[in-house]
Amino acid sequence: MTRIVECRISSCITLSSAPVARSRVEYVLFAEILAPPMNLLGPELVRDLVSLIQQAESDDRVQVLVFKSGDPDYFIAHVDVTRISQYREAAAALTGEPLLAMLFRHLSTSRLVTIAQIEGRVRGAGSEFVLACDMRFAGRESAIFGQLEAAFGLMQGAGGIQHLARLMGRGRALEVLFSAEDYNAELAERYGWINRALPAGTLVDFVNSLAHRIASFPPFARAVIKERVNGIALAPADDFRRDSDLFLDCARTPESQARTKSAMDRGFQTRNAEMNLERMLGELVEP
Amino acid sequence: MTRIVECRISSCITLSSAPVARSRVEYVLFAEILAPPMNLLGPELVRDLVSLIQQAESDDRVQVLVFKSGDPDYFIAHVDVTRISQYREAAAALTGEPLLAMLFRHLSTSRLVTIAQIEGRVRGAGSEFVLACDMRFAGRESAIFGQLEAAFGLMQGAGGIQHLARLMGRGRALEVLFSAEDYNAELAERYGWINRALPAGTLVDFVNSLAHRIASFPPFARAVIKERVNGIALAPADDFRRDSDLFLDCARTPESQARTKSAMDRGFQTRNAEMNLERMLGELVEP
Amino acid sequence: MTRIVECRISSCITLSSAPVARSRVEYVLFAEILAPPMNLLGPELVRDLVSLIQQAESDDRVQVLVFKSGDPDYFIAHVDVTRISQYREAAAALTGEPLLAMLFRHLSTSRLVTIAQIEGRVRGAGSEFVLACDMRFAGRESAIFGQLEAAFGLMQGAGGIQHLARLMGRGRALEVLFSAEDYNAELAERYGWINRALPAGTLVDFVNSLAHRIASFPPFARAVIKERVNGIALAPADDFRRDSDLFLDCARTPESQARTKSAMDRGFQTRNAEMNLERMLGELVEP
Repeated sequence: MTRIVECRISSCITLSSAPVARSRVEYVLFAEILAPPMNLLGPELVRDLVSLIQQAESDDRVQVLVFKSGDPDYFIAHVDVTRISQYREAAAALTGEPLLAMLFRHLSTSRLVTIAQIEGRVRGAGSEFVLACDMRFAGRESAIFGQLEAAFGLMQGAGGIQHLARLMGRGRALEVLFSAEDYNAELAERYGWINRALPAGTLVDFVNSLAHRIASFPPFARAVIKERVNGIALAPADDFRRDSDLFLDCARTPESQARTKSAMDRGFQTRNAEMNLERMLGELVEP
Repeated sequence: MTRIVECRISSCITLSSAPVARSRVEYVLFAEILAPPMNLLGPELVRDLVSLIQQAESDDRVQVLVFKSGDPDYFIAHVDVTRISQYREAAAALTGEPLLAMLFRHLSTSRLVTIAQIEGRVRGAGSEFVLACDMRFAGRESAIFGQLEAAFGLMQGAGGIQHLARLMGRGRALEVLFSAEDYNAELAERYGWINRALPAGTLVDFVNSLAHRIASFPPFARAVIKERVNGIALAPADDFRRDSDLFLDCARTPESQARTKSAMDRGFQTRNAEMNLERMLGELVEP
Repeated sequence: MTRIVECRISSCITLSSAPVARSRVEYVLFAEILAPPMNLLGPELVRDLVSLIQQAESDDRVQVLVFKSGDPDYFIAHVDVTRISQYREAAAALTGEPLLAMLFRHLSTSRLVTIAQIEGRVRGAGSEFVLACDMRFAGRESAIFGQLEAAFGLMQGAGGIQHLARLMGRGRALEVLFSAEDYNAELAERYGWINRALPAGTLVDFVNSLAHRIASFPPFARAVIKERVNGIALAPADDFRRDSDLFLDCARTPESQARTKSAMDRGFQTRNAEMNLERMLGELVEP
């Protein structure tokens, strides 16, 4: 029988942890993200992510880390554009660099296996976060993916370009990055954005079973495999740093600032308005 | 309401141009290719492509360039094998180098976003042309893709290898390149050759809507995104040059010349015979 | 009419060879693997593979080499874990290096076009073998793919990581490599592991037709195309060598040895037990 331990890391992340069957030493950790009202990636959530990663990595029993959302409509909405310097500062607590890109890349090189179990909307840096995880499984009915940056005159600064160009190839990556459109789970699977789209009724059991199976295998080989795969398919750290700089360059342009204002006027960063963000992004104006 | 401006660039390309809604400064340019009798890529079409690119790039209002065909059966058939030196000379007008490969690669690095809206057959260098575009959407019922070179003892000289090996991986690329078979739109989508196969009834509206949406977003971020994606997924210019040299090496072999002659005897480069080119290519002989 | 020549190379491989229609000089060679009781990759099969490759490469008439299995349930089960040093020694006969990785990579750079026609189970180094072939077509109803190494605390040592990370991208490759699960042909196709899954009723004709078509085209261009594709999509030899070393490092760990013993106790390397190997791998224990 599985013993579940629950705890809360600060305010945004609740953990539950289950030991692997037939073992007293391996654990799967489930991190549930819930930062009301809509799981914006602001300083609090970044701070809690840093704590979670530090805690999980320092506990040798934890093998696999599963991320899911406590909000059925939003996995991670995107960054809080009104607090860019604050969330960057919070990210620096993990790597010494104030870059979401490097916080996310840390996950990609962690000894922990990370799995994103995605339901609801995941856009912008939220998408870049799940792309940094080792695997991505999404609920076929509810998951929605988008890289919204281009609509704001912004470039993806937290690794999205590095991952998407490699996962889906030049043509599909340019479409996703230029269009700022929403992609449902089925299309995200077809494009290689995620591993698989699964019916909501089977997603949880599938991820649980996979996570426990992986956690039951010896960690040494897993670390070697991950290092070899990363050597082929994970971009060098400097490419992540450069993307982060270019994001900031874009954010300083008057066009980008005018478009952010236009979006805020239309309800950007509010729960209801972002239920159909795709349409709003097509209507932004510059004065 | 959208104002459409039409004009003709020399003989092979008709342009129509539509301003983006809510804007007086951004335009989408639609280039319709019609070089009777079957959209062969010969010196005239290359010359007109060069003019089109120069004109579109020099007009800051133009953001997105959509290529489509005025011939329902042929998007671009392939190069005119009887006029290789002439179309190469025409290509040199853009880049100073007499290489289709570099003409096409210029498109891949252009500030313009290029979208291929494909109906009908697109083979050989025609396929290499659409691969150089930023995105490819095809009519599910009519689009047919093929790299015919191997049947003639030729290598793909205009970038097809560079794109296909990256888009579809080693196994599928070798199949496509070795087999010289026809691939329908559904299979081309599954292999990653194109972004998506869409029903003919929705293709035009889909591309129009996507093109206008992209054109309405700020160009600065788009240029940065494209540069970053190209840094990952577009081969260096010297690889395109090398492919072009190897194509010429192959074209000089007696086997290749004998097979071209055998094909011409069977109606190669005529509209009717190429409706089922796949079969003809399996029947070529060397004396 | 096609003349079929049959012969047996030692004990594990039966050859049949068919001349290409309209030609007296090009041949397709069909190699049927049958090493009872379950097509384990042991020293005999490796020895026969080496003989086959040497014989086929030295005969200029042979253009295409098709691998299929004489056992409906197993294409290649995996290596014989009780005879690692022996099969490594047998592999050295081809390249001078006692590495399956280099034997397989030799195939990937051979002038021969290699096609794997897969029915039944293909796991571990069996999967790495088909990944080294130029193309992979699988029977939709029967083919089953798996990289079982992680369950034994092993890393894939014969090139599987190099191929899978490039074919399916980081997320799907990590899933396949970490999970040691079985993948049916449909999912293997979706992930890019194979070119296509085809109904059993059409697989043989499809592969025969493709093989003969390819063999009928001039070999010079084919060699150039393969070299250019390999320059993009085939890992350098040193990466294969490094993977092989890391495999041996893993195999020396006590965890790995304990898990191999636990598997042998449960019937590993017996025909019946491996019909549902996926489940057994989830039940291995370390004392």
